[in-house]
Amino acid sequence: MYQDLSTPLRTILTPGPVEVDPRVLRVMSTPIVGQFDPAFTSIMNEVMGMLRSLFKTKNQWAFPVDGTSRSGIEAMLCSVIKPGDRVLVPVYGRFGNLLIEICERYGAKVDILEQEWGKVFEPAEIIQAIDDKQPDIVALVHAETSTGRMQPLKDIGEACRKKDVLFIVDAVASIGGVDVRVDEWCIDGLIAGTQKCLSVPSGMAPLTYNERIEKRIALRKKVERGIATEEELQQTNSLYIKSNYFDLTMLQDYWGPRRLNHHTEATSMLYALREGLRLVLEEGLDERFARHQYHEKALVAGLEAMGLSLFGDPNVKLPTVTCIAVPEGIDADAVRKMLLDMFGIEIASSFGPLHGKIWRIGTMGYSCRRENVLAVLGALEAVLVYFGAPIHKGEALKTAINYYA
Amino acid sequence: MYQDLSTPLRTILTPGPVEVDPRVLRVMSTPIVGQFDPAFTSIMNEVMGMLRSLFKTKNQWAFPVDGTSRSGIEAMLCSVIKPGDRVLVPVYGRFGNLLIEICERYGAKVDILEQEWGKVFEPAEIIQAIDDKQPDIVALVHAETSTGRMQPLKDIGEACRKKDVLFIVDAVASIGGVDVRVDEWCIDGLIAGTQKCLSVPSGMAPLTYNERIEKRIALRKKVERGIATEEELQQTNSLYIKSNYFDLTMLQDYWGPRRLNHHTEATSMLYALREGLRLVLEEGLDERFARHQYHEKALVAGLEAMGLSLFGDPNVKLPTVTCIAVPEGIDADAVRKMLLDMFGIEIASSFGPLHGKIWRIGTMGYSCRRENVLAVLGALEAVLVYFGAPIHKGEALKTAINYYA
Repeated sequence: MYQDLSTPLRTILTPGPVEVDPRVLRVMSTPIVGQFDPAFTSIMNEVMGMLRSLFKTKNQWAFPVDGTSRSGIEAMLCSVIKPGDRVLVPVYGRFGNLLIEICERYGAKVDILEQEWGKVFEPAEIIQAIDDKQPDIVALVHAETSTGRMQPLKDIGEACRKKDVLFIVDAVASIGGVDVRVDEWCIDGLIAGTQKCLSVPSGMAPLTYNERIEKRIALRKKVERGIATEEELQQTNSLYIKSNYFDLTMLQDYWGPRRLNHHTEATSMLYALREGLRLVLEEGLDERFARHQYHEKALVAGLEAMGLSLFGDPNVKLPTVTCIAVPEGIDADAVRKMLLDMFGIEIASSFGPLHGKIWRIGTMGYSCRRENVLAVLGALEAVLVYFGAPIHKGEALKTAINYYA
Repeated sequence: MYQDLSTPLRTILTPGPVEVDPRVLRVMSTPIVGQFDPAFTSIMNEVMGMLRSLFKTKNQWAFPVDGTSRSGIEAMLCSVIKPGDRVLVPVYGRFGNLLIEICERYGAKVDILEQEWGKVFEPAEIIQAIDDKQPDIVALVHAETSTGRMQPLKDIGEACRKKDVLFIVDAVASIGGVDVRVDEWCIDGLIAGTQKCLSVPSGMAPLTYNERIEKRIALRKKVERGIATEEELQQTNSLYIKSNYFDLTMLQDYWGPRRLNHHTEATSMLYALREGLRLVLEEGLDERFARHQYHEKALVAGLEAMGLSLFGDPNVKLPTVTCIAVPEGIDADAVRKMLLDMFGIEIASSFGPLHGKIWRIGTMGYSCRRENVLAVLGALEAVLVYFGAPIHKGEALKTAINYYA
């Protein structure tokens, strides 16, 4: 009744999920071991060490949450936010709105700072808002895949630290593709994703947090257990952490030396994450970031040679996502459909106000390589010619080949 | 610095995670496709269909939550429970306590009914408690791996339906190993796990719920959106659902025909779940349940021939978990360690009051086969002899071979 799994082989050039490195796919076929088998807990420890290198942090706590990227975001926010906390969320795309939604669900008073989609904030603007709004927490997206922009973080992080505000960053789309420096940029809590620049399947959300956050959540745990002192109770108006699954105090007791049983770690996904991290560290962080920029330049040069316009402020472009303005009179979704059906190439639309207005091409992780850049340039040109868009024929591939040659 | 992934090949006879079927391991190496690729959404639909067959339900909604088993439990409970709801939780082992904890975190008033570990409840006792406590919800574990017992559900389900109480069941440890009949037993919401009798790695939590639950959560969504009528607001004192990641109304919009983007479905894990379900349906549900009982009988006969005593009420024994009383004077953990180190066989301890008092041998899914039963009987006898336990030498394997011959 149900046939063998049979899927087409795609060229995936979306902002995620992207093609998985064959080495990562291969380790997922490894027979599993039990969660408390020393052979497995040593792998857990290795992954923590690799994550610290990736995040550029000395934090003790760096481990994945077993769920897709937003599970990590929710674990961080629901563990840190007490009802009534003030959170400042600067929004410059769709995933900023997700931060707002999660903060509000957990009872935060959210102050929103809005920027036009396609731009980012001047750090001074956010720092001014911190002075005005006096938040307990600033929650910010590092890389907005919805608009292809990247927000510089260092000045904001330093300002937060100076004012004793917690700084929480969603780096789901940047980690492994562009530089992220947790300690140097004074980031207190950071959430990453696997299915973008790490080229690991979706299903895990690596995160890290420092002692400032650990101290805060430890206090909530004491409240939960009814062992907080009078003085400690005055420091926190908190209820305990709502979620069991996302309670970082429980996750850290499972990932730490106490090894208290919480969930059953997702064995095969952890094997995959380990191999994905190993690939990143073998390539070298700087070399990997340079590779992403190298292929981005080829793609951008090819698209511009074709006569297409890019969307968004070029000074803050996210190197791993390139947004193209859909030419007048062209049905954006029809182009994407033909790319997929005829060429087996997937590119993305965007969300909300940008749907149908831009295409997004991701060049992330294993998907970020020469043959993919050339494939999408050639196919996109052919499809646009087919639909009668006024483009410069033959220029895109010529330009890209010259670049690579 | 970090070596190739290198793990020992274990014989896993715990109550989960258990050995993964080689066919499931193999499909995890399949290159992925994008989440909105028609090649992928058709797989999502197939998995929903297979889950309906497994659950024996006509429910529209049957899909996995992307997280380990307890993520499904939390998704179900946090979506259904409104603050102040009364939940009756009958507890006969550790995982009943997890239900209590999650219900309380989400603001329920929990009435607890306790049974000695090793026994289950007479249905009449629970039905009486429903009359006494007048709960909105009954939350109950079907199979307690901590004690190896199984609670009959049909009478309780029928009573709940008659009294218009929601009946939510944790079937993480039973699904795929023993019969579970969602519709016939009047179960409103049920959560399963992958890493036990389905022999799929940990990391997904399939669940199902019917229109009674769907109606209830739809009302909460209206409240969230501010579009509930006055009359509807009187029907619910609810706040909206706290969690974004676990909000079943959002998950059903992603799994349903609207395909609203929520998370990025965990591609490789879904491939694994699909193959695991296909294996279950190919084997046949009745045949699979019979296989679990067949090998359980061999294991029990061998253990008893060795002179060991089983723990717990034999009339309500869970066929997939066999609990052994640790003989007087034997260090339970030392035996487990030697089994793992010398024989590569993993069996389990238990939790809380039972730790060190019993061993638990799981015979679940792919782990449930003749060579594993014989391996653990032989190895356990040898290790017990080594530690000087007073057992009948040579009887266990003789008995099991005679059974199988």
